[in-house]
Amino acid sequence: MPPFHPRLYLIVDPDHIPGGNIQKILQQTIPAGVTAVQLRSKTASTKDFFRLAQETLMFLSPFQIPLIINDRVDIALCVGAQGVHLGQNDFPICEARRLLGKDAIIGLSIQNLSQALALAKDKEQATIDYLGVGPIFATKSKPDANAPMGLKTLFRICQMMTCKVVAIGGIQTKNAAQVIQAGAEGIAIISAICQAKNPTYMTRALRNQIERAYLQQKENTHETVP
Amino acid sequence: MPPFHPRLYLIVDPDHIPGGNIQKILQQTIPAGVTAVQLRSKTASTKDFFRLAQETLMFLSPFQIPLIINDRVDIALCVGAQGVHLGQNDFPICEARRLLGKDAIIGLSIQNLSQALALAKDKEQATIDYLGVGPIFATKSKPDANAPMGLKTLFRICQMMTCKVVAIGGIQTKNAAQVIQAGAEGIAIISAICQAKNPTYMTRALRNQIERAYLQQKENTHETVP
Repeated sequence: MPPFHPRLYLIVDPDHIPGGNIQKILQQTIPAGVTAVQLRSKTASTKDFFRLAQETLMFLSPFQIPLIINDRVDIALCVGAQGVHLGQNDFPICEARRLLGKDAIIGLSIQNLSQALALAKDKEQATIDYLGVGPIFATKSKPDANAPMGLKTLFRICQMMTCKVVAIGGIQTKNAAQVIQAGAEGIAIISAICQAKNPTYMTRALRNQIERAYLQQKENTHETVP
Repeated sequence: MPPFHPRLYLIVDPDHIPGGNIQKILQQTIPAGVTAVQLRSKTASTKDFFRLAQETLMFLSPFQIPLIINDRVDIALCVGAQGVHLGQNDFPICEARRLLGKDAIIGLSIQNLSQALALAKDKEQATIDYLGVGPIFATKSKPDANAPMGLKTLFRICQMMTCKVVAIGGIQTKNAAQVIQAGAEGIAIISAICQAKNPTYMTRALRNQIERAYLQQKENTHETVP
């Protein structure tokens, strides 16, 4: 089982990749600093999504990068992916845990503060490894996305939750550090990487911003704790 | 595990039921002679489809009527449904068998003779419990359905296959007997029942046609084997 450090979490969706070539985008970005990958498609047939999952897993295995499958617990289970990402209207969290076992990585999407508050009271929280929280900023990857929650709400959610938080939605090099400063463990990216002119360069730039923000946090901690 | 005799196999899909009320259509039809139920939805969220599967299974259990889930192996597995029905572009048959175990009912859709010929040569056939073959006649339940194959092609496919054949597409009281005479074990119905003025009456009428055709076959066999 590859370790799960979702510092730079790439979501690959054939519909959001020019030409739909997942292999190519992985070749361009994995060696450049991506730490986890989610495969998702809202339009592929189950058969095609299954095949994509197999191919993506085969590609990622040598890099020790975990593969998270969107919604389809059966496909994750069958191909041996490391986990699933579930939306608010996807497969029930506890049932996914029951099927996938204790070692699987299970993530849940949270779009606003009230969902976070509900989850904080719920025993389901204990079964979640990470939360995908967003949209933080405006985004074009999901035209039907909710209103951006901003950094303050992200900060409140991070304070409230015991599991890792991966921030998503409109994150770019210019705001990635702020997201980490607000308490997120990492950032999830779709278009900023997949639709970049140079995905390799963009991956490096984003990862740099994240690591700098972590370094800054560490320095600040040293300053305040003499 | 309820026995699997797909003589009158009802496909319930909220999008094809006036008002979307699955419970009501089951109440009206199960005691009238339905022998197997498939739950399918191409539009419900995973969460809603999961809940529908739980509710449908709970309703069917006392009647000893098996529930087959369309495509979602994970939902079938999780709610404890008796099987899955897979299309040509759905979850791979052998992988579904691996996840669901040897007792699960696994069905596959076949739309034409060439798919049947390909399957007849394939080892996958051994893992299939039944084939959903059609459309036999023109149908309005699936606007994107292939051209009707007719009774002759159904007959050829039934001759070729070792597993049970359930015929689908445009089957009504006037042609149900012909379908059984062509070699099908049973018929699958969507709109003829779900959109009938009186679903109970229609279920009884269809089941009668099927049983008469079986009786006729038996009598013919007695005549030819003195």
